[in-house]
Amino acid sequence: MEQVVDSDLNVKDISFINNIKSIAVIGPSKKRDYFFLRNHQYSFKGKVYAIHPKLEEIPNFPKEDIYSSILNVPGDVDFAFIAVPAKLVLDVMDECVKKGVKLVTVFTSEFSDAGTEEGLALEKELLRRAQNKVRILGPNGLGLYYPKIGMAWRLNFPTLTGNIGFIAQSGGICNIAIYSSIELGIKFSKVFSFGNGADLDFIDLLYYLITDPETEIILCYLEGIKQGRIHELRSILKKNKKPIVVLKGGKSETGARAAKTHTASISGDNKIWKNFFRQYNMIEVDSLEQLLHTARLIECYGVFAAKNLAVLSISGGYGVVLVDIIEHHGMKVPPFSSETQQEINKRFFMPGTSSNNPLDFAAQFFAINQVQEIIDILLLDLNIDGLILDLPGFYLTLPPRIQDPSAFLNVVLESLELGHKHKKPLIVITQHLTRPKNIDEFLINLKEKNIPVFGDPLEFLPLLPKISNFKSNIDKI
Amino acid sequence: MEQVVDSDLNVKDISFINNIKSIAVIGPSKKRDYFFLRNHQYSFKGKVYAIHPKLEEIPNFPKEDIYSSILNVPGDVDFAFIAVPAKLVLDVMDECVKKGVKLVTVFTSEFSDAGTEEGLALEKELLRRAQNKVRILGPNGLGLYYPKIGMAWRLNFPTLTGNIGFIAQSGGICNIAIYSSIELGIKFSKVFSFGNGADLDFIDLLYYLITDPETEIILCYLEGIKQGRIHELRSILKKNKKPIVVLKGGKSETGARAAKTHTASISGDNKIWKNFFRQYNMIEVDSLEQLLHTARLIECYGVFAAKNLAVLSISGGYGVVLVDIIEHHGMKVPPFSSETQQEINKRFFMPGTSSNNPLDFAAQFFAINQVQEIIDILLLDLNIDGLILDLPGFYLTLPPRIQDPSAFLNVVLESLELGHKHKKPLIVITQHLTRPKNIDEFLINLKEKNIPVFGDPLEFLPLLPKISNFKSNIDKI
Repeated sequence: MEQVVDSDLNVKDISFINNIKSIAVIGPSKKRDYFFLRNHQYSFKGKVYAIHPKLEEIPNFPKEDIYSSILNVPGDVDFAFIAVPAKLVLDVMDECVKKGVKLVTVFTSEFSDAGTEEGLALEKELLRRAQNKVRILGPNGLGLYYPKIGMAWRLNFPTLTGNIGFIAQSGGICNIAIYSSIELGIKFSKVFSFGNGADLDFIDLLYYLITDPETEIILCYLEGIKQGRIHELRSILKKNKKPIVVLKGGKSETGARAAKTHTASISGDNKIWKNFFRQYNMIEVDSLEQLLHTARLIECYGVFAAKNLAVLSISGGYGVVLVDIIEHHGMKVPPFSSETQQEINKRFFMPGTSSNNPLDFAAQFFAINQVQEIIDILLLDLNIDGLILDLPGFYLTLPPRIQDPSAFLNVVLESLELGHKHKKPLIVITQHLTRPKNIDEFLINLKEKNIPVFGDPLEFLPLLPKISNFKSNIDKI
Repeated sequence: MEQVVDSDLNVKDISFINNIKSIAVIGPSKKRDYFFLRNHQYSFKGKVYAIHPKLEEIPNFPKEDIYSSILNVPGDVDFAFIAVPAKLVLDVMDECVKKGVKLVTVFTSEFSDAGTEEGLALEKELLRRAQNKVRILGPNGLGLYYPKIGMAWRLNFPTLTGNIGFIAQSGGICNIAIYSSIELGIKFSKVFSFGNGADLDFIDLLYYLITDPETEIILCYLEGIKQGRIHELRSILKKNKKPIVVLKGGKSETGARAAKTHTASISGDNKIWKNFFRQYNMIEVDSLEQLLHTARLIECYGVFAAKNLAVLSISGGYGVVLVDIIEHHGMKVPPFSSETQQEINKRFFMPGTSSNNPLDFAAQFFAINQVQEIIDILLLDLNIDGLILDLPGFYLTLPPRIQDPSAFLNVVLESLELGHKHKKPLIVITQHLTRPKNIDEFLINLKEKNIPVFGDPLEFLPLLPKISNFKSNIDKI
């Protein structure tokens, strides 16, 4: 792997993560029904040990894999999830060092997050005991979700592996992102919830994802960085070419105060951050939803420049509104080339309909084979580098026009795949409010074919210029 | 009813609509399986006639209600839906005049919408033949959806009656709005699709809704008005106190051109319209989704001023982002009063948690009875005039914490009803992407209790200042 930082930089190497083969859950709680043990046990593809000083049996867990101390485990333990009371964490850490554990998540809270002197002191002591031999996620963090090896802190996290990495302090934000990924269709390589960031912090993890061969798109929720770390951040970003999408928390005065309360982050001046993100070609967004949607768009089509869009609608009025929103966000809905218009005219049979951009299909949408041909023609047009299609869900079910719904839907699906054929983003709007249950299967098909479907034009149209901007900056390098 | 316009103004009176008792569908098409007849027949509460020169039988339609001409119908016909070929429309209109029909929808297109001289001439002649005795919706329009009397141009339109009126030229936009209303939970009084607006136009219909006792909230999609009608528009708006939410189509250059193509509307200068809307205290929005969501918020809580919001989250990070978005849109997340903070502290059992705004419940959310008490306390606080709650769907199903899900959900529901008790808007965010199927019933309960749930903070937060602004302007009068 290319060396992307100066060797004297204070950034920790955790590339060993990609070789984790055995894990231990320290402190499985009978009272909580062995919550974290179950979650890690459920899908992990390597060896899982349970460590508890007293428990000898755990239902549905191999008796021979329960040990009173991690030191008694015969083989290696690469990773440990620590969920013991705060006062026991130091002793557990001593044992992890002795055992040669490489990485731990300290889920336990009441360290610096408590906002007390004792808490701060305990965290400092924890770090000292780790001796730079054990890397720590936390305290007060949920750690690492790594679907490729089946490592998850929740039972029902998706098991499919993707190329999107995500970093956040907040475990709650990670949970929303991971659960959302199923519905949205994105797949993660790794997600980190690093809590107080006593050892591994935002910068270490960002460095890891930038250099991680399993990660192509990086998402982060950033409240702030530790004092004195900006030099490292600049250094690791300098040569980065992966798209990094960032949601900055604490941009407002009250938001900054709240961030400080819950993770002791110093949010810093919003304008400085904005400039910083621009300088390093990071894609800044305004909500967690935008963060995930940006990832979805890039996952489907790679980074793209979509400045000139074709707009297709079934309702002419809705098409007009789409054009207004698109041009308001600095993109264009340019005329089709005259060749394209001629080709469209050959296929349009309704009088008084324009063959230009935006194109209003109206009832002609039901002549789906022509629609397919027209989409193919539009995407060939050099004036056009992307296509937005308004497709209200009820048009997919309305009798009596659609006599063979499944054949009809197949052609719709083929038409919508044409974006991939032409390597131009084709994006569908099926309003959240117009999705009858009987099109669920159709929507799942779209998801699996990597055709992005949004439920509201304002959900994604403001994101397109951000992606285009990233693309044109990266092309300049 | 109060006289809101000068008597010499050219605005048509269609208040007779509220007394429609009998309708005729002229030109039911066997080829299209009697589409519009079926749709009007399905739920209409009065008398329905089918008019066709040749048809003597229509399956599942009373033979005695089929007539070869509307003139042969023995009783009155208040409304007729005309779907005959363009060349027959004039004769049909002559008969409607003779019969004393009050209102017709001309669904037939190829009038001015065709953009030809013949089309224009035909439309002019149609108007002349109507002799100002028959009022026309259309041509090229879908007409009137009026659920109270069961009048609908589609079979599966909702049958519940509400107090929201909607006007649009485009039938497609009306269809999206009406289908969306089911999922969103809003209910219409009347929806008008007036197509080419040869007779009844935007201004006539707006005047009707402003003076209609069955309508409290008015939505409109406006591409433009006829030349020389601005005086009438000003006059009818001058004394209006109902909230009018407007989506202007054709704000961009290309959008204006497209609007002109599909409805021959002159969009006019966007800045002039923006000022106009401001001057008449109309609520301008940017998308059809925003139009509907604004209606939902007002339907749930009336018009409100929500400038100081309490933010409650289960994920602290998500709460920080909410605060950022709220303050970015000019609202505040102010500190709670010291009394409120004291009361919260009595109920918070987690160390290191702030009792101030925004409030991060984290795992304490599962102590739902305390959550309910806290929401009640917050809404009493004079510093607070609205509450935003982040409630990811998966928190409502997660085992093993929730041992009796239905009891738990009942308390959640009661907690979320507290906005109505305190007459302050309480708005829930359950991300579109975090809605497992098994919370469907819960979401329907929320809908029925008029508790608005959004799937994305950017869907509704930008709308709150618009509603507040309307409210403070109306209070000044």
